[in-house]
Amino acid sequence: MHNNWNLPDIVSYIVKKEKEIILFDQSPQKLYEPIEYILSLGGKKIRPALTLLAFNMFSDNMEKAVCQALAIEVFHNFTLMHDDLMDRAEVRRGKPVVYKVWNENTAILSGDAMLIMAYQLVARCPSHLLPDILNLFSVTAMEVCKGQQYDMEFETRRDVTKPEYLEMIRLKTAVLLGCALKMGAILGDATPEDTAYLYDFGINIGLAFQLKDDLLDVYGDPAVFGKNIGGDILCNKKTFLLITALENANRQQKEKLEYWLSQEACDKEEKIKEVTFLYNETKAKADCEFKMEEYYQAAIHCLDMLSIEPERKKELKLLADSLMERRS
Amino acid sequence: MHNNWNLPDIVSYIVKKEKEIILFDQSPQKLYEPIEYILSLGGKKIRPALTLLAFNMFSDNMEKAVCQALAIEVFHNFTLMHDDLMDRAEVRRGKPVVYKVWNENTAILSGDAMLIMAYQLVARCPSHLLPDILNLFSVTAMEVCKGQQYDMEFETRRDVTKPEYLEMIRLKTAVLLGCALKMGAILGDATPEDTAYLYDFGINIGLAFQLKDDLLDVYGDPAVFGKNIGGDILCNKKTFLLITALENANRQQKEKLEYWLSQEACDKEEKIKEVTFLYNETKAKADCEFKMEEYYQAAIHCLDMLSIEPERKKELKLLADSLMERRS
Repeated sequence: MHNNWNLPDIVSYIVKKEKEIILFDQSPQKLYEPIEYILSLGGKKIRPALTLLAFNMFSDNMEKAVCQALAIEVFHNFTLMHDDLMDRAEVRRGKPVVYKVWNENTAILSGDAMLIMAYQLVARCPSHLLPDILNLFSVTAMEVCKGQQYDMEFETRRDVTKPEYLEMIRLKTAVLLGCALKMGAILGDATPEDTAYLYDFGINIGLAFQLKDDLLDVYGDPAVFGKNIGGDILCNKKTFLLITALENANRQQKEKLEYWLSQEACDKEEKIKEVTFLYNETKAKADCEFKMEEYYQAAIHCLDMLSIEPERKKELKLLADSLMERRS
Repeated sequence: MHNNWNLPDIVSYIVKKEKEIILFDQSPQKLYEPIEYILSLGGKKIRPALTLLAFNMFSDNMEKAVCQALAIEVFHNFTLMHDDLMDRAEVRRGKPVVYKVWNENTAILSGDAMLIMAYQLVARCPSHLLPDILNLFSVTAMEVCKGQQYDMEFETRRDVTKPEYLEMIRLKTAVLLGCALKMGAILGDATPEDTAYLYDFGINIGLAFQLKDDLLDVYGDPAVFGKNIGGDILCNKKTFLLITALENANRQQKEKLEYWLSQEACDKEEKIKEVTFLYNETKAKADCEFKMEEYYQAAIHCLDMLSIEPERKKELKLLADSLMERRS
């Protein structure tokens, strides 16, 4: 009989296996401590869970996919360690970032070690699957770098278009979710069709996930969200909301938006309030919600197309729904 | 008939293939430009040449090992890009370093992309060899990170011992030479014994190579060396020479050395002259030359043990000799 794991059990399993499989107690300590630190900050472990959820659709023995699930998690945290340094972030999951606790060189070098560690975990798979798994991982890793590069370039551009933004978040966020799922499918010996549907599910849910992030940053509940509401507005981040608002705005609205974009040292509350008002008025919020729903539906369609019993799709559907309904 | 390639032909072949195989003309440009820049700075291409020289001992069709040779070169340049940033270097091969030409974030992110690119090149091998090749590469890459970590830690320590220093340069420099050779051997279907001898040849020649570097920095010919003579002395770098001098010194010599180590804003020429004098007087120079010769002989012994015709060992012997006799 097939054993359907539920998400909380999978996450506990990942946390347990992370401590078993990854050896932090190595020399030089200062290389490994920051790795243990960032992984122990918690986070939702969504990406490794996707690998195991996809794998579990086709196979029960989770041991066979857990190293690759951890590889995805280690890779994701490598990108956080380097991105936090590049973006000059201060806090990650409520704790000071690595380059603040240690220093910049540590964040660079321990990050490099994490990328290598991720490859070592990826490689722990049956050798007949290794070429495909490895190629998928490398292509995805390179895409994530490209996404980060575009994201940084967008900071100093004022003419970012919607398609450019969507391509950037596809690279920076969505492909890793697709990769996580596809890896689970390959390890579970899924058909090429099912493997492709799971990848596309990941891309679509990843795009929806990022648009949800953009919305939460403006419309989230301050008591639950974790970060300060309006952070994106204050730093003029080119989100889907801002790009859409600028596109949809009439002349007067556009002038107002441009005015607030030019204000750096103004009253923060006022800027957030006024820009949020413009997001509502220009229907940027509605457009963003509509786009998010579109991607969510596309993801669900991919799930429907999978040639497995509906019973086995339940847990991934639940995860998709929770990502859409999340408040933080 | 076996076709023995000579070193200059191999280096030309590597430079040609680098431009053919690595696609620099991709988006985003700002991610790929720094990669093309650092690879085009030249350098001696010793590491990829080692892969092809080792491969050529067992096989003629260089096409079968060129991607892995390039992987080693791309990896080496990835470490240079990140190390230059961490070490705050200004110049690399006579040109400004990447983080100066672009910025720090570019050096971080393009470096990350190079590490991934190196993995993609490594993976382009027959699938039955992939697990071994990949494992060798990852283990080596992690060792190089460890070496860089130790190197950075040594900067703020005053009690570094000779064994610690030798272990650091083994990790930071020698293992990549060993890996380059071993990869060529594996791709050439060498026996496990020959593969191991080539790896050990690389470790020993790598250690000798680094000791030669330490010597050149003090005793090199300013007209040929490329960098300023005495750079290591001025920044109190814990080289084999300094560690040995401190070990060998009598009380008076030790006091003098400690005095010069404490002088930061003194006359540069005088500090270099006096410390060099102490290196001679304490026999640190002679000890370093002796140790270097020991490693060189150990390397030659490994070459002798290889179960192939002496004719096929000639080119690697020539390279080893040129590394020992080099003046820059």
